Amino acid sequence: MAHFDKKQIVKKSENPDRWYTDVILRSEMADYSPVKGCMIIRPYGYALWENIQGYLDKKLKDLGVKNAYFPLFIPMHFLQKEKEHVKGFSPQLAVVTIGGGEELAEPLAVRPTSETIMYDTYAKWIQSYRDLPLLINLWNNVVRWEKRTYLFMRTTEFLWQEGHTAHATFEEADAFAKTIMDTYKRFDEEELAIPVLTGRKSESEKFPGAKITYTLEALMPDGKALQMGTSHNLGDNFAKAFDIQYLDKTGKRQYVWQTSWAETTRVIGALILSHGDDGGLIFPPNIAPTQVVIIPVSHSDAAVSKCDSLKMELEATGIRVEIDDREEKTVGWKFNEWELKGVPLRIEVGERELGSKELTVVRRDTGGKRSVQLSAFSVQLKKLLNEIQKNLFEKMKKFSEENTHEVTNYDEFKNIMNNKKGFIRAFWCGDPKCELSIKGETKATTRVLPLDAKEEKGKCIYCSNDAKHRWYFAQAY
Amino acid sequence: MAHFDKKQIVKKSENPDRWYTDVILRSEMADYSPVKGCMIIRPYGYALWENIQGYLDKKLKDLGVKNAYFPLFIPMHFLQKEKEHVKGFSPQLAVVTIGGGEELAEPLAVRPTSETIMYDTYAKWIQSYRDLPLLINLWNNVVRWEKRTYLFMRTTEFLWQEGHTAHATFEEADAFAKTIMDTYKRFDEEELAIPVLTGRKSESEKFPGAKITYTLEALMPDGKALQMGTSHNLGDNFAKAFDIQYLDKTGKRQYVWQTSWAETTRVIGALILSHGDDGGLIFPPNIAPTQVVIIPVSHSDAAVSKCDSLKMELEATGIRVEIDDREEKTVGWKFNEWELKGVPLRIEVGERELGSKELTVVRRDTGGKRSVQLSAFSVQLKKLLNEIQKNLFEKMKKFSEENTHEVTNYDEFKNIMNNKKGFIRAFWCGDPKCELSIKGETKATTRVLPLDAKEEKGKCIYCSNDAKHRWYFAQAY
Repeated sequence: MAHFDKKQIVKKSENPDRWYTDVILRSEMADYSPVKGCMIIRPYGYALWENIQGYLDKKLKDLGVKNAYFPLFIPMHFLQKEKEHVKGFSPQLAVVTIGGGEELAEPLAVRPTSETIMYDTYAKWIQSYRDLPLLINLWNNVVRWEKRTYLFMRTTEFLWQEGHTAHATFEEADAFAKTIMDTYKRFDEEELAIPVLTGRKSESEKFPGAKITYTLEALMPDGKALQMGTSHNLGDNFAKAFDIQYLDKTGKRQYVWQTSWAETTRVIGALILSHGDDGGLIFPPNIAPTQVVIIPVSHSDAAVSKCDSLKMELEATGIRVEIDDREEKTVGWKFNEWELKGVPLRIEVGERELGSKELTVVRRDTGGKRSVQLSAFSVQLKKLLNEIQKNLFEKMKKFSEENTHEVTNYDEFKNIMNNKKGFIRAFWCGDPKCELSIKGETKATTRVLPLDAKEEKGKCIYCSNDAKHRWYFAQAY
Repeated sequence: MAHFDKKQIVKKSENPDRWYTDVILRSEMADYSPVKGCMIIRPYGYALWENIQGYLDKKLKDLGVKNAYFPLFIPMHFLQKEKEHVKGFSPQLAVVTIGGGEELAEPLAVRPTSETIMYDTYAKWIQSYRDLPLLINLWNNVVRWEKRTYLFMRTTEFLWQEGHTAHATFEEADAFAKTIMDTYKRFDEEELAIPVLTGRKSESEKFPGAKITYTLEALMPDGKALQMGTSHNLGDNFAKAFDIQYLDKTGKRQYVWQTSWAETTRVIGALILSHGDDGGLIFPPNIAPTQVVIIPVSHSDAAVSKCDSLKMELEATGIRVEIDDREEKTVGWKFNEWELKGVPLRIEVGERELGSKELTVVRRDTGGKRSVQLSAFSVQLKKLLNEIQKNLFEKMKKFSEENTHEVTNYDEFKNIMNNKKGFIRAFWCGDPKCELSIKGETKATTRVLPLDAKEEKGKCIYCSNDAKHRWYFAQAY
């Protein structure tokens, strides 16, 4: 197999799809499972998910959101209560028909999302304006049957958090949905180092059952857009379907206004695609399971104890450190291995380093080496980690900007989508027919309309009728 | 409904079963769900589960165990590979027969436990002695179809952690299974304040597919035993069924030796039953979602700001605090409410307290009031919380000891099981027929044989044949 290098990964530049799979398997982020369409998240990948959970969980709690758990199963008639919702999810359901050896009177869907099972209960819990807002989040697993799957990006089962809130007014619900969008944006950009466009979805692209879907869209290196998360203003659609009403301060019964929102293990796929290179993964320090790897070049007592004390010193300031002291592996093998695993900084400790007042530190993102004084060592490393975090974000920001095209001519639109791809910013009249034709002809869909998009006078890129807004289009994952 | 007091809970002393359900629903720990046999864990109950997770997760990581995720679904033929295992779990399976609108060629079981789906992959991951030990834990949801369910105690779906390890030798696996048992014991006793008996299960009571099952058994106030957790030495049963072999240092192929172990949301049920009283829940401080509640008796600016500064001071030392400043509820209602919710300490702040150098603190466990000096306030409260933690454990320890009976006569055995119940310590010859007969006649099963049980000369409580060991018997949840 000529295209396999010593790390058993193909070059990203040669075959990005194959590189993606190779690097995930070889770095032990994840593995295929014997269950069609489902994946195994290995400890190295799960540690990343735990960091993601840790960050988001804290931010959500700061917003007053509380965690809870709702059943895995949904009685089929629940899903049918909101007509757009059932239409959207029915084709993707896994259905339990046998329980405890007997055929079930009513089959149970394995949750594809929990709106229906939760809101039936919300109707019971919410009685008065004093019960509002109700802000609940679940960390769980969901199942949506997929024919073609792709590790992390699209799997039949995936992990996520799903938030579900109820409010007294439309305005409050809408503001909350936007607050979540902003929270996700900060997370995507500051932690994952992935720049995102935010705004709202078109009618045909929104969540089945939502009034407005707010979205976060990132541009992947292959020029395709990836939806990093969504936050839905559900209006009173589900409130009416599930009869969720409260008594307001004047004693009048009112329907509640709701939101739901999610980020999934899919963002791990985005992370891998965005930052990795021919050498393997590159993790942004803020979210990396291991931020610094120490490799003893000698196994003398002095070298081992030096590694241990370095680790302790760095860990004391909150840096995540691993020592790779396996004796059966060569130093060169270890360099390759930790490069593949995307650890932001590497330190070698050999006999030469023992007497020195400085150590050589190697950056994963640039390959650059730097001598760092042992006095104030952890402070220097934190600074370096911040530099790497910033560099990764700036690189992707530049890429995203360079691959965003202002287009006023449909031939140019088609030409771009046939070649380098990227985001296209173009006028669209808002007619779903134009949207559908564009999709049919170029595979590009409307991705997002920024919230601050000004009303302009323009002509639809497809039908040339009057159009008020420039939308972002892209081919999407 | 005459038996409902102002808190809408029946007295524990009058009707413990009804009290248990009342208190869970009324304190908003959990709720029934519209899916038969499944429950909703509400934010107050889930916060407790998060504390449990936080503690156990850290202890497991300290042992070198890493978290991962495996699929929810298990192909049916996997379950059939270990014959005892499939026999044990088949009657309880939920089975998916339809996926994406089509009938599946092979139905998928919703995992009742993950041995089979994991070990198929372990066979791929484990090649050399260098890959051992493999120490993996999952935090997930599992489904075992139940006909009669009971909130937290027995539900069709429940949450748990399941650990699965592979080792080079039987001895190492056995030692690890015992280490986990010890870890659970410390958790149950030091955090949940529930004393447990530890040791091994009889052949008929062990996990389907295990060589040895180590168990932790607690005595509930109604005299029935509750299994708090189990840790299984699986021997090479699954290694042979799934062909998990490694090359040892001499280049010889060897089967691995395995363990699996779990604690579940069921321990929350044990916690509620063990410590609660007629007033409602009583949570041990170490695990309580809220350790101290501050109730402003006045809503003046000065009182509100005093509450806020107290909260900040306590939180700064790691104490979990809530202020209940709802203006629409009376102070009396709030006292009742937080008593019901089992918060260990209550503080009132009114005008009278503003000028004072001390505050009155009320203990939930004893109802005792104490004046605490504001100088070194948080240190004093920590001491009080520790006292409560200790008191709850000692109380249950005393109860457990007082309800453990040395019995040498089967009539006495039957008499105890017909009345006050509790643990019975009695000789048993080891014959499963005696065990089965005892169960049939008294509903009591063998619960545990302590690991340090000395070999003695005795007569079986049932058949009077020679017996070497005194086992613990009890009726069980």
